[in-house]
Amino acid sequence: MKKEHIAVLGGGTWGATLASHLAKQGHDVIIWEFVKEVADHLKKNRSLKTLPELKIPAQVQITNDLAETLKGRDVLLSVTPSHAVRATFSAAVAGGALTPGALVISATKGIENGTFSTMSQIISQVFPGVGELVILTGPSHAEEVAMGQPVALVSASHSKPASERVRDMFSSDIFRVYTGKDPIGAEIGGSLKNIFAVACGIVDGLKLGDNTKAALMTRGLTEMARLGKVLGAETMTFFGLSGLGDLIVTCGSKHSRNRLLGEKIGSGKTLAAALAEMTMVAEGVKTAESAYHLGKSKKVELPIVGEVYKILFENKPPRDSIRDLMSRQVGAEMEGVVV
Amino acid sequence: MKKEHIAVLGGGTWGATLASHLAKQGHDVIIWEFVKEVADHLKKNRSLKTLPELKIPAQVQITNDLAETLKGRDVLLSVTPSHAVRATFSAAVAGGALTPGALVISATKGIENGTFSTMSQIISQVFPGVGELVILTGPSHAEEVAMGQPVALVSASHSKPASERVRDMFSSDIFRVYTGKDPIGAEIGGSLKNIFAVACGIVDGLKLGDNTKAALMTRGLTEMARLGKVLGAETMTFFGLSGLGDLIVTCGSKHSRNRLLGEKIGSGKTLAAALAEMTMVAEGVKTAESAYHLGKSKKVELPIVGEVYKILFENKPPRDSIRDLMSRQVGAEMEGVVV
Repeated sequence: MKKEHIAVLGGGTWGATLASHLAKQGHDVIIWEFVKEVADHLKKNRSLKTLPELKIPAQVQITNDLAETLKGRDVLLSVTPSHAVRATFSAAVAGGALTPGALVISATKGIENGTFSTMSQIISQVFPGVGELVILTGPSHAEEVAMGQPVALVSASHSKPASERVRDMFSSDIFRVYTGKDPIGAEIGGSLKNIFAVACGIVDGLKLGDNTKAALMTRGLTEMARLGKVLGAETMTFFGLSGLGDLIVTCGSKHSRNRLLGEKIGSGKTLAAALAEMTMVAEGVKTAESAYHLGKSKKVELPIVGEVYKILFENKPPRDSIRDLMSRQVGAEMEGVVV
Repeated sequence: MKKEHIAVLGGGTWGATLASHLAKQGHDVIIWEFVKEVADHLKKNRSLKTLPELKIPAQVQITNDLAETLKGRDVLLSVTPSHAVRATFSAAVAGGALTPGALVISATKGIENGTFSTMSQIISQVFPGVGELVILTGPSHAEEVAMGQPVALVSASHSKPASERVRDMFSSDIFRVYTGKDPIGAEIGGSLKNIFAVACGIVDGLKLGDNTKAALMTRGLTEMARLGKVLGAETMTFFGLSGLGDLIVTCGSKHSRNRLLGEKIGSGKTLAAALAEMTMVAEGVKTAESAYHLGKSKKVELPIVGEVYKILFENKPPRDSIRDLMSRQVGAEMEGVVV
């Protein structure tokens, strides 16, 4: 195995989990954390309050100094919150410490609201000297990876050698990485799935059954594929780990913030009341808004997205949405899905 | 709406549920039940012991007389157990009461072990005078349909008018039917999914997490698509309601016999001990055996099917299977999936 020199940007649950895994594989790993107090806590306690299952190995360095992090490291693992990606790379470029041609692995899920720019598109804009870009994504609760339970992800890149380099960097007996060649599709799946997690939560709140939820997830996936195609993704990507796999894990999870928000709304709360009860952001709300308007402007048929939008933003009663979804004119199952 | 004259062959939970739904849509419906005592019980109590949620409407006729059932009816809904389909149609043909050119809707899941013949293939062989054949399948616990919860299914046929006729026959505000043109694929998905339900149960028994299960279902679906292709199915069918939708509902269900059998084995029981504890057949066991040998003879790579086979029939410890699955050489995600 080749020993890689890796700068992990972001010391949250997923960043610390991936950094610990990479260190155990024998790589040189440093975590950069933006908030100094968090960096100090990580350094001292070798664990996160939000993820007690994780013990960060002693060989992982931890710092709040971005220049120190980047120096001499030609692999960057970007895993900050999505709203911080642009600022982090801007600061890194301004500091002049980025290695030209560095391999950047983006493991942050999310797309920019309104513009639908993916994280890799933001990184390319801000850091023109970037080498290859690889997306690492798939069904991955950090809690389970931290406990050593098996996980399978995708490393997607336009460059086959780069996706294989990332695969080899991470692969172990609990960590399986498949290569993919559609980074945009891999990023979009991880974002759009949050809309359908909200929808699944609404079905849970209405106390409807497993048939309804399975139908919703299956039909939701065809909507993802239709919208993703317009955004430059390949249809088949949505039927893999970054689309379907992530959708299954999110819709089935008691911990998903998006599913939980939907459940509150399905059981009768308004969006405002449901949001007031949440401590963390449910990205599916903003994503539903963006996707709804994008679907309209591009003339893509997205019935489930449309109903989620109307429930969230126009106070449509969820039961009316279910009735309207069920009574729409039906066509062929794979209508509009172009492979 | 056109009033149809429908003979429902089989008075089990799914047959009685579909018959009741069709009668509520205004059709003329008769149920034929093979076991006289069961037919008498149904007639007297208008419900099944195994499905107390269902009240069979008064206008549904119930009989044990096959000739009476078939007389003057040009729509047959075949919903007996899979092992009884051949015998039922043979008896109907011998009795001379079948209407030539009748539309047959097959709603029985399962494929013949060894030969991998689907129900529609059996019906075509036994009843050469059959008109159009339509498969009705998808994620459908009878309990939930009986309670009036929304369900979405597929009516798949080589004949578009026939699939649309079936769609119109069933469609209501809780029953949504998409048309499809790959009946063989629709039938095969409903059968192969039981292998992966056993595998999901094994993961549950090992107390592995949601990441592992989501990865297993996603990768399982690509195996279904690869094997289905060899059997004459279209790849995309497996990503719809009859494949993915049914897989989701089965893998997530506490009631699935196949998942439950897997859970017993994952928690340390042998196949014999697990089977001894079950009162009903888990079809996934025989299907795994057939699929394993078929994959070998056709040279289709089916790693999950292979490990399920080895766990069931060669006493391989499930943890060793997980380890071996995780440490196989990895390739591209959609390798071997041809659309």
